[in-house]
Amino acid sequence: MAGTVAYHGDMPAPDSFLHALVAVFPEHQLTQDEERLAEYSVDKGPLEGLVVALPEAVVHAESVEDVQQLMRLASEHRVPVVTRGAGTGVSGGANALPGGVVLSTTRMDRILQLNPEDGTAVVEPGVINADLNTAAAAHGLMYAPDPASYRTSTIGGNIATNAGGLRCAKYGVTRDSVLAVDVVLADGSLIRTGHQTIKGVVGYDLTGLFTGSEGTLGVIVGATVRLRPAPVKVLTLAAWLPDFPTAAAGVLQIGAARVTPAILEIMDRGTMAALDEAHGSTLSARGEAMLLVQTDGFGAAAEMEIIREVLTGLGGILSAPDDAEAEALVELRRHARGDAVETQIRTGEDVAVPKSRLVDYVAELERMAVSHGVQLKVVAHAADGNLHPTFWIATAEASEAMPRLEAALDESIRVALDMGGTISGEHGIGSYKLRWMHWEQSGPVVEIQRQIKQLVDPQEILNPGRAIL
Amino acid sequence: MAGTVAYHGDMPAPDSFLHALVAVFPEHQLTQDEERLAEYSVDKGPLEGLVVALPEAVVHAESVEDVQQLMRLASEHRVPVVTRGAGTGVSGGANALPGGVVLSTTRMDRILQLNPEDGTAVVEPGVINADLNTAAAAHGLMYAPDPASYRTSTIGGNIATNAGGLRCAKYGVTRDSVLAVDVVLADGSLIRTGHQTIKGVVGYDLTGLFTGSEGTLGVIVGATVRLRPAPVKVLTLAAWLPDFPTAAAGVLQIGAARVTPAILEIMDRGTMAALDEAHGSTLSARGEAMLLVQTDGFGAAAEMEIIREVLTGLGGILSAPDDAEAEALVELRRHARGDAVETQIRTGEDVAVPKSRLVDYVAELERMAVSHGVQLKVVAHAADGNLHPTFWIATAEASEAMPRLEAALDESIRVALDMGGTISGEHGIGSYKLRWMHWEQSGPVVEIQRQIKQLVDPQEILNPGRAIL
Repeated sequence: MAGTVAYHGDMPAPDSFLHALVAVFPEHQLTQDEERLAEYSVDKGPLEGLVVALPEAVVHAESVEDVQQLMRLASEHRVPVVTRGAGTGVSGGANALPGGVVLSTTRMDRILQLNPEDGTAVVEPGVINADLNTAAAAHGLMYAPDPASYRTSTIGGNIATNAGGLRCAKYGVTRDSVLAVDVVLADGSLIRTGHQTIKGVVGYDLTGLFTGSEGTLGVIVGATVRLRPAPVKVLTLAAWLPDFPTAAAGVLQIGAARVTPAILEIMDRGTMAALDEAHGSTLSARGEAMLLVQTDGFGAAAEMEIIREVLTGLGGILSAPDDAEAEALVELRRHARGDAVETQIRTGEDVAVPKSRLVDYVAELERMAVSHGVQLKVVAHAADGNLHPTFWIATAEASEAMPRLEAALDESIRVALDMGGTISGEHGIGSYKLRWMHWEQSGPVVEIQRQIKQLVDPQEILNPGRAIL
Repeated sequence: MAGTVAYHGDMPAPDSFLHALVAVFPEHQLTQDEERLAEYSVDKGPLEGLVVALPEAVVHAESVEDVQQLMRLASEHRVPVVTRGAGTGVSGGANALPGGVVLSTTRMDRILQLNPEDGTAVVEPGVINADLNTAAAAHGLMYAPDPASYRTSTIGGNIATNAGGLRCAKYGVTRDSVLAVDVVLADGSLIRTGHQTIKGVVGYDLTGLFTGSEGTLGVIVGATVRLRPAPVKVLTLAAWLPDFPTAAAGVLQIGAARVTPAILEIMDRGTMAALDEAHGSTLSARGEAMLLVQTDGFGAAAEMEIIREVLTGLGGILSAPDDAEAEALVELRRHARGDAVETQIRTGEDVAVPKSRLVDYVAELERMAVSHGVQLKVVAHAADGNLHPTFWIATAEASEAMPRLEAALDESIRVALDMGGTISGEHGIGSYKLRWMHWEQSGPVVEIQRQIKQLVDPQEILNPGRAIL
């Protein structure tokens, strides 16, 4: 779907542009040999139906001025620019565009300020999420947003995709921790939005507009983010429930008891079986569904006690307090996205539904899997209704089964929308999910976004054809 | 400053428009007599330097269709529309415009859905904040944003101003609780932004764009908001500290102990003296500065214990646990904005500074009060650095002292900005604060906002001349 929006980068970049790059950027900031370019061709998203291209070049920015310089050249020559952090996105938003250049921000990796008393940090875009957390931890603080990629992904990329994670239901998504951004616009000019303070309501929320815009409105070259107190205590529980509906009932009962877990993951039998196969564990022998729970902060013990009562009451088998396996499972869930295997074609989705519909939605997914003849496993950030169902087929049967896989996928999106859900809870649209976007958004809403894009990027050189229709 | 932006409503609305209103809206939905129009002329903001006008008419919308109908007529006749909830704003954002019409949404006051399991509510814009909280409380839930006006202000107005409140440092501002909005645009068309789920990242953040736009981009006619578990426990403390710097040090030490109070207010001697005068209390006899603290949730007791230790260590005099006076003081602070008195001219400000600068900033305020010969009192949402300093003079000396008051005010804004602060932490720009806006925002940032405004309201009929330059 990369061609949905017309852009002019589907031809090779003009030689004059490439010559200008060489003239402006020293050798160590420019990648042009094909083998290394391939590393910047795609992100971690699915490739089905997408055009895969090598970029013409990769520019490794080391300063805001580098980014401005590149954007001025790209504007002049009308060459599309794909900004890329660690390339851990899963929607194809950082895939290279034919005839385009990739702007890598990973070398802009300095934490410029860490202000413990203010509860803020000022960072360059290439700072790794985990590195910011390590620096914050030295002051008893944390940067709350924790996408599964937190060990490798960059704050700039997290902001560009408004990344979610496991702790969102308690601490919010990336947007809720971003106070201000420095942005280089398509013409190379630099603006600063937002405020250095925790609160601020001056004018329109441009910080929110750039957050989650997937590099289509500007290049994030700096950010002021909010840090929160690191929890004084963290408690972990793994619980096996007799079936998925009972586990989902547990999620609702925990909420009704006014408990706010930091992490509340639900996994079906298929997910446990996959983990067993990969790690030699015996999770799936213990129940049809598993909940992984963490409570944190001063109320951690009291909250965990209530959770244990609720789940015991539902017939759950609970891990012992301080069980090392439970902690290992959360850690695994925190940073593991389903492993790719050669023998299977898997499609990982990211819908969200109202929490009360979790059970109905998973029942529908199971029905779809049977009716389309595909395999299914489901894991969900249960506390905010954000599901990651995976349908899969054997690679060997692909030619025959692929249409069935696609049909199951499409139906899963339709049904989520019918239940009041959304096509993307946290992964973003990128290029892969554009095909479903008009199922969710009305024509006028699409049009306003198009117009905002045209306003700040009239030549459509910033990641054209991504994020919006 | 209402004339800063050119609009065409500074002439009387054409008779044809007024005739159309009468033809379309039944008598009980239309206010046209001067005495009643005066009630819709201004909000609770200061009037110094502003043009005060009667609206040509007030339309009391009872449905989305009413709003659409009005906007179509206003578009056709190019008449400015000021949308108004309860009129409790404090920045002049809901003041009527000469030749304009006021659109009142207070009659659209139904809670359309309350979904306890999902943790969401769907409301019309005229629902009173406190009424939503009462309805939520029946299910063990709360709507977290709590502006001081919560007993009378509307959710629509709260969203239009991205209202803050006392609990923001723990639970966020209004934006953090808004999931979706229904908006009628200038041409009368209706769009729906956002998602019904807790998380969602499809396209640009239009919900954030409309939130806090003070009625300049569209009319909020519906919203899906997030509800959170009501805290199982709330504990309250009043503490008197030897001086303001010590109280501010307490704020920082509480943060360093990883405690997140639900409420953390700091008040200086001037504020206590004003309360004593109004209520016959003896607060100011007990210390030079007062902290009002609430902890809530499962960790409330443990957090309060730490706070008591910290403040005792700083020489504080602490209220007993369950002290009724402390609770009364928080309640007072929760819903009392400084009482207006005829004998004084007061200017209430709303800057925010990085938390570490609270002490320095208040010292600067005290210096300014002396150097400009004006009185001063300060109260602040300390945990997020949001201060409400009040300078005042005697009404009797106004003709001589007013320039000094204005000079103190201007200087207080300059100094806050110099410290990395913002001109508005939570009250918004409205019409009153436009004069300081270019001190904070650069030309290009102002320009992007202007262009977004022109995009969705090309005739500039939606609250023209407010919120942005």
